[in-house]
Amino acid sequence: MTTSAQRHNRFIYAFAEGHREWKDLLGGKGANLAEMTNIGLPVPPGFTITTEACRHYLETGHEPPQLWDELVEHLTALESRMHKRLGQADDPLLVSVRSGAKFSMPGMMETVLNVGLNDESVHGLAMRSGSERFAFDSYRRLLQMFGKTVLHVEGSLFDAAMADAKRRADVSHDLSLDAEHLARLVDEYKDIITQRTGQEFPQDPTTQLRMAIHAVFESWNSPRADSYRRQERIPSELGTAVNVCAMVFGNLDADSGTGVAFTRDPATGARGVYGDYLPNAQGEDVVAGIRNTLPLNDLERIDERCYGELLAIMETLESQYRDLCDIEFTIERGKLWMLQTRVGKRTAAAAFRIATQLVDEGVIDLDEAITRVTGTHLAQLMFPRFESSEERQRLTTGIAASPGAAVGKAVFSSTQAVQCAANGDDVILVRRETNPDDLDGMLAARGVLTSRGGKTSHAAVVARGMGKTCVCGADELTVDESSGQLTAKNGVVVNEGDTLSLDGSTGEVFVGTVPVAPSPVARYFAGELDLNEANDDLVTAVHRLMRHADHRRRLRVRTNADTPEDAVRARRMGAEGIGLCRTEHMFLGERRKAIEDVILTSVGINETADQEAALESLAPLQEADFVALLTAMDGLPVTIRLIDPPLHEFLPDLTELAVHVAIADERGEELTHTRQLLTAVRRLHERNPMLGLRGVRLGLVVPGLFAMQVRAIAEATVQRAKAGGDPRPEIMIPLVGAVQELELAKDQARAVLAEVSERTGVPLDLPVGTMIELPRAALTAGELAHAAEFFSFGTNDLTQTTWGFSRDDVEGSFFSAYLEKGVFGVSPFESIDAAGVGRLVRLAADEGRAQRPTLKLGVCGEHGGDPDSVQFFEHAGLDYVSCSPFRVPVARLEAARAVIRNGTVGEDR
Amino acid sequence: MTTSAQRHNRFIYAFAEGHREWKDLLGGKGANLAEMTNIGLPVPPGFTITTEACRHYLETGHEPPQLWDELVEHLTALESRMHKRLGQADDPLLVSVRSGAKFSMPGMMETVLNVGLNDESVHGLAMRSGSERFAFDSYRRLLQMFGKTVLHVEGSLFDAAMADAKRRADVSHDLSLDAEHLARLVDEYKDIITQRTGQEFPQDPTTQLRMAIHAVFESWNSPRADSYRRQERIPSELGTAVNVCAMVFGNLDADSGTGVAFTRDPATGARGVYGDYLPNAQGEDVVAGIRNTLPLNDLERIDERCYGELLAIMETLESQYRDLCDIEFTIERGKLWMLQTRVGKRTAAAAFRIATQLVDEGVIDLDEAITRVTGTHLAQLMFPRFESSEERQRLTTGIAASPGAAVGKAVFSSTQAVQCAANGDDVILVRRETNPDDLDGMLAARGVLTSRGGKTSHAAVVARGMGKTCVCGADELTVDESSGQLTAKNGVVVNEGDTLSLDGSTGEVFVGTVPVAPSPVARYFAGELDLNEANDDLVTAVHRLMRHADHRRRLRVRTNADTPEDAVRARRMGAEGIGLCRTEHMFLGERRKAIEDVILTSVGINETADQEAALESLAPLQEADFVALLTAMDGLPVTIRLIDPPLHEFLPDLTELAVHVAIADERGEELTHTRQLLTAVRRLHERNPMLGLRGVRLGLVVPGLFAMQVRAIAEATVQRAKAGGDPRPEIMIPLVGAVQELELAKDQARAVLAEVSERTGVPLDLPVGTMIELPRAALTAGELAHAAEFFSFGTNDLTQTTWGFSRDDVEGSFFSAYLEKGVFGVSPFESIDAAGVGRLVRLAADEGRAQRPTLKLGVCGEHGGDPDSVQFFEHAGLDYVSCSPFRVPVARLEAARAVIRNGTVGEDR
Repeated sequence: MTTSAQRHNRFIYAFAEGHREWKDLLGGKGANLAEMTNIGLPVPPGFTITTEACRHYLETGHEPPQLWDELVEHLTALESRMHKRLGQADDPLLVSVRSGAKFSMPGMMETVLNVGLNDESVHGLAMRSGSERFAFDSYRRLLQMFGKTVLHVEGSLFDAAMADAKRRADVSHDLSLDAEHLARLVDEYKDIITQRTGQEFPQDPTTQLRMAIHAVFESWNSPRADSYRRQERIPSELGTAVNVCAMVFGNLDADSGTGVAFTRDPATGARGVYGDYLPNAQGEDVVAGIRNTLPLNDLERIDERCYGELLAIMETLESQYRDLCDIEFTIERGKLWMLQTRVGKRTAAAAFRIATQLVDEGVIDLDEAITRVTGTHLAQLMFPRFESSEERQRLTTGIAASPGAAVGKAVFSSTQAVQCAANGDDVILVRRETNPDDLDGMLAARGVLTSRGGKTSHAAVVARGMGKTCVCGADELTVDESSGQLTAKNGVVVNEGDTLSLDGSTGEVFVGTVPVAPSPVARYFAGELDLNEANDDLVTAVHRLMRHADHRRRLRVRTNADTPEDAVRARRMGAEGIGLCRTEHMFLGERRKAIEDVILTSVGINETADQEAALESLAPLQEADFVALLTAMDGLPVTIRLIDPPLHEFLPDLTELAVHVAIADERGEELTHTRQLLTAVRRLHERNPMLGLRGVRLGLVVPGLFAMQVRAIAEATVQRAKAGGDPRPEIMIPLVGAVQELELAKDQARAVLAEVSERTGVPLDLPVGTMIELPRAALTAGELAHAAEFFSFGTNDLTQTTWGFSRDDVEGSFFSAYLEKGVFGVSPFESIDAAGVGRLVRLAADEGRAQRPTLKLGVCGEHGGDPDSVQFFEHAGLDYVSCSPFRVPVARLEAARAVIRNGTVGEDR
Repeated sequence: MTTSAQRHNRFIYAFAEGHREWKDLLGGKGANLAEMTNIGLPVPPGFTITTEACRHYLETGHEPPQLWDELVEHLTALESRMHKRLGQADDPLLVSVRSGAKFSMPGMMETVLNVGLNDESVHGLAMRSGSERFAFDSYRRLLQMFGKTVLHVEGSLFDAAMADAKRRADVSHDLSLDAEHLARLVDEYKDIITQRTGQEFPQDPTTQLRMAIHAVFESWNSPRADSYRRQERIPSELGTAVNVCAMVFGNLDADSGTGVAFTRDPATGARGVYGDYLPNAQGEDVVAGIRNTLPLNDLERIDERCYGELLAIMETLESQYRDLCDIEFTIERGKLWMLQTRVGKRTAAAAFRIATQLVDEGVIDLDEAITRVTGTHLAQLMFPRFESSEERQRLTTGIAASPGAAVGKAVFSSTQAVQCAANGDDVILVRRETNPDDLDGMLAARGVLTSRGGKTSHAAVVARGMGKTCVCGADELTVDESSGQLTAKNGVVVNEGDTLSLDGSTGEVFVGTVPVAPSPVARYFAGELDLNEANDDLVTAVHRLMRHADHRRRLRVRTNADTPEDAVRARRMGAEGIGLCRTEHMFLGERRKAIEDVILTSVGINETADQEAALESLAPLQEADFVALLTAMDGLPVTIRLIDPPLHEFLPDLTELAVHVAIADERGEELTHTRQLLTAVRRLHERNPMLGLRGVRLGLVVPGLFAMQVRAIAEATVQRAKAGGDPRPEIMIPLVGAVQELELAKDQARAVLAEVSERTGVPLDLPVGTMIELPRAALTAGELAHAAEFFSFGTNDLTQTTWGFSRDDVEGSFFSAYLEKGVFGVSPFESIDAAGVGRLVRLAADEGRAQRPTLKLGVCGEHGGDPDSVQFFEHAGLDYVSCSPFRVPVARLEAARAVIRNGTVGEDR
C-alpha cells in the first residue's frame, strides 16, 4: 500500500493545522474544514483523526498506541478554547463525531452527534440553554444514534418507543412532545440499550467519544459501504478520517437557525444568492422537510448582520476555491458558524456557463475552464429535451437511467411492443422490471419505464447499451401487466394505448404528449444555429470552450460512418476523417440478393451460378458507395474496413428456416429457394459466430472477396482523383491475429492496387493497416507493425475477447447482477477497462511503435466517444479516436481535457 | 536481425576450415562435410559459401564485393589440389554446387552438378574417363539442370527432347542411348536454351559456377521454399549456404558405385551393417530406382578394401556423433569418397532402443539418452498396432495423417457413416476429400481415408483434432462416391460394405480385417505387462528411460479425469493427482432430468417445482461421485472445477425443438413438456454460448448452484477423512475475468466449508483457486493472486479467446487452409502458441508469483500432454501439467527432457 510509505508521526490534526490539499490524510470534509479555519472563517473548533489511524485500526483491530494521548491533548485544547469540558455537568461541551473519506460516499458511513451528554450533563445543558425540552431531545438523539451506530441496536426499537410515546401523549409529531415526555423517552431508550446489549449506556463522556470514533472507523467496512465502493471503484484500503467538532445548535431559539447556500445558481450558473434557511432548526430538520424552508435572502430580514457576514464568506470561498461552492451553516443565537463547504455539484448547462463566467471574471483561464466541464456534460446537453414552457402533467419521477426524451403509447408486454412498433406506432414499454425476454420489446420501443430496480437494473443496463431512453425504479407507480394498466400514487391511471412522455435525463414521467425540442447545443454542432442569431449564453459558452479545446488537444477525432450522410453530418460536428467505414453495411437492403448469390455459390449450393460473376455484380455498387464517401470526406483520411461478419449473417435465421421447411414438409409444399437457403445456413452454421469464419479469415478462404472490395476502393479513388478531388482512403484488414494473415491479405490488396494503378496511371499507394481487436494481435503487435502501416484498436471486439463475453449475450443476462455486486463499476463496453483491455492497448501501441515509429494508431470502438476512455487513449499516446458522429464533440472536448489535466497535479474523479 | 551482429570477415571456408557446430554459417551439410574432412575421412575437396553471403545477395540483389576474390582464391586452391583446372579442356575439374541450409529443407532448393563441362572439356572428360557416353551424358545432365535451375527454362522441354531421342533410337530407356545419341541430345538441349532465353549456354566454366551459385542463393526465396518454411516455422531471413565440391563419379565403370549406409538399423536400432549399394551408378540412380540395389554387405564381395574402409568410417562417425548416422558415399574406380553424413532419422522404437544401447555401450549417459527420445516417439509407441505377423493384403499406402489402427466397413458418404454407426457397425469413411459437411460422418467413423490432400488437408486436420485414425492423399485410389466404390491402381475394387483396415501411423491401407494388437508399451504403462515376463527390449528401454525421467523432471504430472475409472487408469500411468475434474460431466445421462428441473425452475418456467429442492436432489449424487474420486486419488491432490458450461447445454437443441413444436402445431398435438423446454431454450438462447452465461458468472447469478457443489465436495471430504483416508480436494472457479468475481465465489465457498467443518468437526481448509482461461485473467493475474491459492491455465479456452476463434467452428472450416498457407505451423490447439497464448501464460505466472510466492501453477488444457507445450510450461516455471490419462507418460518424459535440455547448449528443432 502506497499509503504506508507516507506514514506521518501523528494521527490527529486540529482544524487549524490541516490543509485543503491533504484529502488523503484528512478526508474531503476535514480538509475543507481546515481550509475554512485557516482563512479565518467562523468554524466551530475541532480536530480531525487521520485516515492512517483508521487504517491502523482496521488492519490490527485496535487504535494506534499513541492515538489516545493525542486525542486527550487535542480534546484538552478544545475544552480550554471553549471554556468547558466534555460532558461537564453544569455546562457540558458536546461534540459531533463525523466520518469523512477522501472521496465522497454520501450516506454510507456513520455520524454521532451530541457526544458528551449523560444523566447529569443533560441538566447542565438544560440550564445553560434555558430549554429543558431541547436538552432532553438532544440526549434522546444521542442515545438513538449511539445505540444504532455504536452498539448495533436495531433502529426499529427506538422508532417503536417513539411511536408509543406519541400515542401516549396523543400527539402526531415529535416536535409536540414536551420535556417530560422526552425525559421519559430517554429512560426508555436507555432500557432498550441495556436489554439489547447487556450493558448500560456509557455515562463517561470520553468513553462515549472513544466508542463513537471506533464505530466510525468500523463503518468504513460496512457491507453497504463496501458495495458502494466496489461500484464506484473507490479503493477499499483508503479508510475514513473522523472529524470531532464542538456542537453548535441552530435549534436553540428564534435567533438560531440553519441553512444551505450556493455561491451561484447550480442549475444555471447565474451569480447571486441561492439557498434555503430554516429558523430554529437543525440540519436534520432541513433534510427531513418537516417545515418549509425560506429562500436564503429572507435571512437579510431576519438577521441582517449574519446575512452580510454569510455573503462575505461566500465571496471569500469563491475566490479561494475559484469555483461554485456549496455551504452548510448554522446560526446559534445570532452567531454564524460554518459547518461544511465543498465545490458544488451543478447541472451540465451550469457547468459550461460557470466555467466561462469565471474566465470572464478573470478567476480562471480557458485551460482551467476546460477542466471544469466534461464530455459527459456535453453529451447531456446534446440530447433532445422536452419543451419546458409547455403545460405538462407530471405523473412521477423515477431514476434517470438512460438519457433522452421519448414519447409513445404505453404497452405492457414485449410482444405488444413489437406488434405496435411494427404497425408504425411509437411505444413506451412499461414493465415492473425487465428480463432477457424483454429484449425485443425494448428494441422496438422508444423508451422504457419500470417501477422497480435502480441504475444497475436490467432495464437500465440494457437501455443504456441500446442508447434507449429509460426511467427505472419509479416506485410510486403500480404496474399491472396482466390488465395493461399502471396506477400512480396520486390515483392517476394510465391504460394500454395512453400516451406517456419519458425524460431520461431527469427521470420525469409525464402523461400525454410533451413536445420535444432539439437541443440548441446539438443544433449548433449540426450547423443549424447561427451563433449570433441564437444569442444563447449556453451555446456561446460551449462554442468558446470547444474552440479552445480544438486549439489544445493533441488527439485527432474521426468518425465511424458507413454512409455519405453520416460522413457529412460528422464533418460538421468536427470529424477529421473516417476512422471506420463498415463495408458490410453496404450489402444490406436490396443488395442482399447479390451477396446471397455469392454465398450460395461459394458453399457450392447454387452450382449453376458463377461466383466470380456474383462478386463482380457487387463491385460497381461498392465503387459508387466509396466515391460518395470519399467525396464527402474529400481531403481527409477514410479508413475502409474490408468485410468482417460471417457470411451466414446475410442469410435468414436457421431455426426460422428449419421451421418453415418442416411445415412445408407437413403440407407437401415445394419451397425450393428456402430449402436451398436452409442447406446453406446449415453448412455455414457456427456455434459461436463471433469466433468463427469472419474478417481476414473470410478474405483468405473465399477467393475474390477481398480483391473485389479493394478493386472497388481503387477504382473509386481513381475516379475521384481524375475528377480533381483529394481522396485519401486507407485499407483496413479486420480480425487479424497473426502477421501471416496480414501479409497474405496485404499481398492480395497490393496486387490489385498495382494492377489498377498501372491500368489507369493514377498512383495508388494506399496505406494498408490492421484492426487490433484480438488479444493475440495486441500481444504480437511488434510483428504486426512490420506489415501494417496503421493500427486501429477495435475495442468492442477486444473487450469481448479479452473478457470472454459477447455483448449480445451478456449485457441482458448478467451485467445488471455484476454492476449490482460491484464486479464492474461501469460496463466495460461503456468505458474502457484499463487494467485488462487497456493494458493490451498500451502494450500494442508501445511495441508497435517500437518496431515502426511512423505507425499511425487509432481507436474505432465505441469507446472512442466515451469521456473516460478518451482520456485513457490520450495517455496511451494514440493518434486519433473515431466515434459516432454525435459523439465527435464529446471526444474533441475530452481530448483537450486530457492534455490539460496531464500537465496539472489536480486530482479529480 | 541477430545475424548481422555476427558478421564475419570472410564469406568462404574450405571444408577443412569449417566446424561441425557452425550450422548457422555453413548450413547443416557444410558443417558435416567440414567435420568429416577434419577427422580425416575421404571427402572430395571443396568449400562452403556462407549463409551470410546469401543474405547479402538476397538483401541487396548482388554478391558481397569481396566474394569473387575469395572464390577465385578457394577455386585456385581446389584446382591445385586436384591438379586440374575447372573446365580444363583436356582434363576438366568438374564441381557440384549444392544448397545446404541450417535446417533441413529436403528437395526445396537447387543443385547443379557437373559444372565445368563445355563443348571442349566434354571431349577431355571422355578421354580421361575412357567413356564418351559418360562424358556426353554428364554434359547433357549439366545442360538440363543448369537450364532449369539457373535459366528457368521449362523442364518439360528437355523431357520432350529426351523422349524424342529415345523414339528416334527406338529404345525405351535413357541408359540405352549411346554416346552419339547423347551428343545429339546435347545439341538439342543447347538449342532449347538459346531459343527460350535468347542467349547461349555459357561456355566459360567460371561463369557457369557464378551463375549456379546465384541460382542456389535465389532458390531460397522460391515460392515452394517460402511456403515450406512458413509451415515449418523456419525463419525466412536465414538464407542458405552453398557447397562447391569436386565431382566424383560412381558411374565410371564396374569398379565404381554409389551407396547409402546406416550405422545401425534405423527401424529397430540393432547394431550392424545396414544400407544399399549400386555398382556403376550415381546417387540419382539409386533414388530413381532404375536398378535394384544390393544389400550393403555384398560390397564386401565386390570391393573388400573399400568395404573395410567404410566399416571403419562408420565406427568413427558413430563415436564422433555419438549416435546413429546415415551416410552417402561413392566409389570411383576403387577409391571411397564420403559425400554426406548426418545424424539419421529413425522410428520411435529404434529411438528408444538406440538410446539405451548407447548408454550400455558407455557412449552417452542417461541424461543424454533422454534427449534422444521424444514424447512424440513415446505417444506413437502407445497406439494399438496391426499384428504384423498376420497375412495382410495391402491396397495402397497414403499419407499417415493421424495415428492409430482402424478397422471397419467402407462407406462413401457422411450420411451412410452416421446410419451404419447407429446400427452398431464400425465404419471407415472413404471420401475423395472431406469438407465441413462430413464432420458428423467423421465423428461416427472409426477411421477416415481420402484419396486427395496432404497432411494439412481438411480430413487430416479434423481427424487429428478428433483423435481419429486417418490416412489421406492415397492418390493411387480412385474413389467413386456416387456408386460407392473405390478402385486401386492394381485393379482391386472395394465396394461399400467391404472391410478396410487403416494404419494411421504408416499410411498403409489393407483390404479385409487385420487383427489389432494393443501396444506392449501401452500395456506396460497400464500395468498389464510384467517387465521380466515380457522380455521385450523395447519395453525395457522405455522402462529404463522413464525411470530416469521421473528422477530428473521438476514438473509434476497430473491427469484430467472425471470418473474414478479414469483416475485409477491415470494413476497407473504415473499421474500424481487430478488437475481437472469437470463436474458438469456428472450431470449427463440419467441425471440430466435433475439438472433440467433446476434449469426450468431457475428461468421461472416450471414455477410449481422448487429450485432449491431440485438442486438438493443433485447434491448426494455429486457427493458420491467425489467420494469415489477422492478414494481413487487418495493422498494426492484432486482439483475439482465447479460447473462451467452454459445451462442450455443440458437442454435439447433449439432448432430441433422448434421444428418439433411447429410440426405438433400443424398436427394439433399437445407436447407440453417439449413446449416448456422450447420456452426455456429460447429464454436461455445465446448467440455465442462460449462467450455467455457460464462458469463463475453462472455461479454468481444462479443462487445455490456453486454452494451445492461445494457442499458436496465438503461432505465427501469429511466422509473420506472419517473413513481414515487422505482426501486432498482443491476447489477451482472457472472463467474468472476479474478479482471481484473470484472474491465473491470464494466467499460463498468459504462459508459453506466453514459450516460443514463446524458441524462435523473436520477441518476443511481446502485450497480455492482459479482457472486462467481468459486473457483478462492473465492480464490481471497479480490481482487474482491475492484471492487465489492456485492458478490452473485452461489453455484450450485461453487459445480460443486469445485468437478469437472457437475450436468447434474453425478446425473444420479454415484451419486446413491456414496450415496450407502457413499461417500456422501447427494448430494452436495442438501445440501452445508461444508468442500469443504462451506470452499470457508467462505473464500471469510471473505476476501471480510476484504477488504470492507460494502460488501453485498448473495447466489443465489439452496442451498439458503435448510434447512441445510441456517444454514450454517447464520453461515458464509452472508446477505441474495435467493431461488425459493416456498422455501422462508423454508428459513425464517431456518434463525431464525439458530440464535436461535447459542445461545443455544443443540446438534441436
